[in-house]
Amino acid sequence: MNNTNNKTGRTVYRRRKNEASSEQSSEQKKKSVKNVSAKVTKNTRAKQASVPRQPKEPARKTPVKIIPLGGLNEIGKNCTAIECANDMIIIDCGMAFPDSELFGVDIVLPDYSYVEKNIDKLRGVVLTHGHEDHIGGLPYFLKKFNVPVYGTRLTLGLVEGKLEEHGILAGAKLNVVTPRQTVKLGCMAVEFIRVNHSIPDAVGMAIHTPAGVLIHTGDFKVDYTPIEGGIIDLQRFAELGNRGVLALMSDSTNADRPGFTMSERKVGESFEKLFAKAEGRRIIIATFASNIHRVQQIINNAVSTGRKVAVSGRSMVNVISIGIELGYLKVPDGVLVDIEMVSRYPADKMVIVTTGSQGEPMSALTRMANNEHRQVSITPMDFIIISANPIPGNEKLVTRVINELMKLGAHVVYENIYDVHVSGHACQEEQKLILSITKPKFFIPVHGEYKHLYQHKATAVAVGIPEENIILGDNGFVIETDGVDMKVTGTVPAGRVFVDGLGVGDVGSIVLRDRKHLAEDGLIIAVATIDRDTGVILAGPDVVSRGFVYVRESEELLGEARKLLTESLQSCLDRNMKDWNTIKGKMKDNLSEFIFAKTKRSPMILPIIMEL
Amino acid sequence: MNNTNNKTGRTVYRRRKNEASSEQSSEQKKKSVKNVSAKVTKNTRAKQASVPRQPKEPARKTPVKIIPLGGLNEIGKNCTAIECANDMIIIDCGMAFPDSELFGVDIVLPDYSYVEKNIDKLRGVVLTHGHEDHIGGLPYFLKKFNVPVYGTRLTLGLVEGKLEEHGILAGAKLNVVTPRQTVKLGCMAVEFIRVNHSIPDAVGMAIHTPAGVLIHTGDFKVDYTPIEGGIIDLQRFAELGNRGVLALMSDSTNADRPGFTMSERKVGESFEKLFAKAEGRRIIIATFASNIHRVQQIINNAVSTGRKVAVSGRSMVNVISIGIELGYLKVPDGVLVDIEMVSRYPADKMVIVTTGSQGEPMSALTRMANNEHRQVSITPMDFIIISANPIPGNEKLVTRVINELMKLGAHVVYENIYDVHVSGHACQEEQKLILSITKPKFFIPVHGEYKHLYQHKATAVAVGIPEENIILGDNGFVIETDGVDMKVTGTVPAGRVFVDGLGVGDVGSIVLRDRKHLAEDGLIIAVATIDRDTGVILAGPDVVSRGFVYVRESEELLGEARKLLTESLQSCLDRNMKDWNTIKGKMKDNLSEFIFAKTKRSPMILPIIMEL
Repeated sequence: MNNTNNKTGRTVYRRRKNEASSEQSSEQKKKSVKNVSAKVTKNTRAKQASVPRQPKEPARKTPVKIIPLGGLNEIGKNCTAIECANDMIIIDCGMAFPDSELFGVDIVLPDYSYVEKNIDKLRGVVLTHGHEDHIGGLPYFLKKFNVPVYGTRLTLGLVEGKLEEHGILAGAKLNVVTPRQTVKLGCMAVEFIRVNHSIPDAVGMAIHTPAGVLIHTGDFKVDYTPIEGGIIDLQRFAELGNRGVLALMSDSTNADRPGFTMSERKVGESFEKLFAKAEGRRIIIATFASNIHRVQQIINNAVSTGRKVAVSGRSMVNVISIGIELGYLKVPDGVLVDIEMVSRYPADKMVIVTTGSQGEPMSALTRMANNEHRQVSITPMDFIIISANPIPGNEKLVTRVINELMKLGAHVVYENIYDVHVSGHACQEEQKLILSITKPKFFIPVHGEYKHLYQHKATAVAVGIPEENIILGDNGFVIETDGVDMKVTGTVPAGRVFVDGLGVGDVGSIVLRDRKHLAEDGLIIAVATIDRDTGVILAGPDVVSRGFVYVRESEELLGEARKLLTESLQSCLDRNMKDWNTIKGKMKDNLSEFIFAKTKRSPMILPIIMEL
Repeated sequence: MNNTNNKTGRTVYRRRKNEASSEQSSEQKKKSVKNVSAKVTKNTRAKQASVPRQPKEPARKTPVKIIPLGGLNEIGKNCTAIECANDMIIIDCGMAFPDSELFGVDIVLPDYSYVEKNIDKLRGVVLTHGHEDHIGGLPYFLKKFNVPVYGTRLTLGLVEGKLEEHGILAGAKLNVVTPRQTVKLGCMAVEFIRVNHSIPDAVGMAIHTPAGVLIHTGDFKVDYTPIEGGIIDLQRFAELGNRGVLALMSDSTNADRPGFTMSERKVGESFEKLFAKAEGRRIIIATFASNIHRVQQIINNAVSTGRKVAVSGRSMVNVISIGIELGYLKVPDGVLVDIEMVSRYPADKMVIVTTGSQGEPMSALTRMANNEHRQVSITPMDFIIISANPIPGNEKLVTRVINELMKLGAHVVYENIYDVHVSGHACQEEQKLILSITKPKFFIPVHGEYKHLYQHKATAVAVGIPEENIILGDNGFVIETDGVDMKVTGTVPAGRVFVDGLGVGDVGSIVLRDRKHLAEDGLIIAVATIDRDTGVILAGPDVVSRGFVYVRESEELLGEARKLLTESLQSCLDRNMKDWNTIKGKMKDNLSEFIFAKTKRSPMILPIIMEL
């Protein structure tokens, strides 16, 4: 159905309404289920009923579709389409980093084909904050659909750098918004609401639609003592909740962690202790470039202990300069020194802030660990703090860097016990808080793997959201609500699009399967030249292998392989076979069997026959 | 030096003694350092001095060499040679699992070439316990050197299975030992001493050598309430300490964790609570096959709640049957049922013990999660406990399995908060205990990455071991002690040997480099047939690619590539070039540049020229 409605949103909507009435029996069945749960959540319902604006039997309204294109059942590439009548907006435009089995893939994007089919409806992109998993796909998106983009100042500051790299900044339509500001986009209005997160200027949003108010938290935590920018706007969330929220989409990243996420300020306290402990030594702190508040606390501690600060790593330099330029980062004059000047300062007067907290192979900290950093040589006079937790999948990389730094004599603080990192995401108690004050009728846990969405659902049930009002969705689900019901009415394409070098989408399952095969066992090429007319072998078969065995020590094996291939080929030719594909198949099967028996390996085998 | 001493151990020893005396000035320098630290450790020294057997100025004795061949600066492939005069023993013979960048490698072994060069000295292998990182290399080792093997009953029970698979059980010389038993091996005697660990029948050892007593803890923890087999033999360790220990090698795996590792019994308590919580549902518990005590606790809980137990996963079935056969696992009659019968029992009367706690792709739990298990279908009636922590590197695999199990409706307990797993390794307080009661003169932290060895050193310094008496070694270090000094006197080959299929050592850095290259960007093969005499292109160049781009959608690119190759080749031939390598180099360079400009990718390029 979704393939046919690119220009006829209204028509589809009417058809949908008819469908709804024809499904009355299943509707009634659902209502009876609801009555059961209504008892459980009596208090909540009673309160909702006391809000005067909400009619007792609300009429079905113009339905709104929520279509997650990324970020469900995964960490990364957050992207959600909200569609109502003839209008569509996109919340966030993120990318994901490839799993280790996505050989050679640089980044992963959502599939934008549903957006492409509904391009006439697209009114704009609204951004929650400037992390890669929320803005990293934007350059690719805007190259296809150059629509207006709305985000806070820092978010758009980071977007600008990206678009410039891709050479599309000049034509982009970037619009700065501030918290509590509302932007009208077709029949919807998006209100930006401040949240706390591990990057400044993060917002959630209320999307005012004809069907009701949708709230999307974006990534969030509750920080009552933030470094800058104010506390998450709990008052506004509560106000919206009081007036009636149709559906809540909330960050599930930490849904399996009980309790509260600690304030970013806690890290500053740890830094204070560690700066004291590091006395006399140079301090090097690795953290996420985008965590400007963390950098602010490093700078504050440097200032109070009379140290200069140098910055290493391209993204760190980039974010810090944007942070200073836009006023998010306050650095007294004379504190920052060029990384080139580092060696001119005594160790105990220097702090180096660097990228590489995830052990990324080309990052500044990794180069320091490998003694390959141009300006920084690690010695026993270095006191190094890894101010981050390894993202799942990066544990071994981080450990390797720590080992190498320690081998150079540095003291490295990396253990959890030192509180040198706090999460940017809400734990269960914060999730309960948002659920309780927004009191949504429907709930869709977002941003997380299935286990996170599942636990977030359990948390929501615990605070009184009826189980049947919670949808555990998936990318590509069309979740539709008319203010009365919410259900999954279909699916749209929502796979993964791989970026490899300049290619977007030209690497797919066949290419990846081949790469995996080549990675596991290498390949053997068998090439022969044959006289088309006489069927005589003119040259070869020659055998070339790569990634299979060390050739110089396996001459015997490869010699036998050549002999076997010659026999296979000759016997085919003797039988007057002319279909090269069949002949190649025979050569491949025979060689494959021989090689496996000899080595228990299955290299890719590529027979090539040239005709003369 | 080590290359020349295969049959002249004594000669080398004498030469070494001379060297030692010629280094007197540096020796004296060292002693003055020691005096400083002696103050710190006054009490300890005073006690040592009160032991009557220890002369105040001990004479230099026949030196003993400690040569770690694996297990230092890594987790895995534990293997240490102890060499004295004309005798050598090997402590443990482990394997390591490959890192993700060791494409296609099945397992990693230590380099045994030093053992090979000193084969005449080799008296036997002594084993601490039956984990893969301690016995997994044994089949490969025994195929080269079929010497006697000494280990406890369960350890050798597990070894037997391995040797049988490799077809070498019949000729193997396996000798069962019991704790406190001593085995004489040349001029050394190995005394086995009970320790606690996550597998029964684990031992550490005291190696009585002419130079003094060496203690190797093996993997250990201190469990005052073990499930079976008794508490670690602290009394014997203390007794040896009292008499004087020359050097201690101790397990560093958890050296960066403060406190104590909890007793295995703690997990049983958690199981009890979770069995109650799971009432009415089928319970599935995934854990390490070798953790027989964990399995015992599952069985105990099953019995007390009236459930039957079925076992899934080859290694789990294997270890449980060995455990029962050897009396380490007590299962009342009628409790175990065949996995084939699982569906005949009601859910609330069944516990399934399974492999797959690390999310291993072919394991039983993963097959259940993927709906591919022959006998077990997961439903919302399943209550699943992952009784293990992910080993670093496996986090994503484990998460994937949890997500899939939850999608099938199962309840999955995997969080740390439930105490469903305890470590098998000592934390800092236990490490201090062993250091304190053995009071070694010298200390070598073993079994761990550099960060673990480093932290273990800090712990040892904290309990009074002088810093200069601690050696942070590496695989291949020859650590020599004559009872008075301990120092690194050389190195021996100690790299990694890769097993891929049947091949041991035939995959090296070139093959791995090619596999990595192929994995990243795939390959392009350019093949042409040329008349040797006239230099005319008879056929081709043809272009074949794999793992590069989706060929059907990239015909234009590959067409241009073919054109470019023809031009490159023709221009070489026109200039009468006859050196095929130069011509192939030209073709490769031109194509490589073209492809990179077009795609920002660097596939492997393989030009093949056939001559007629």
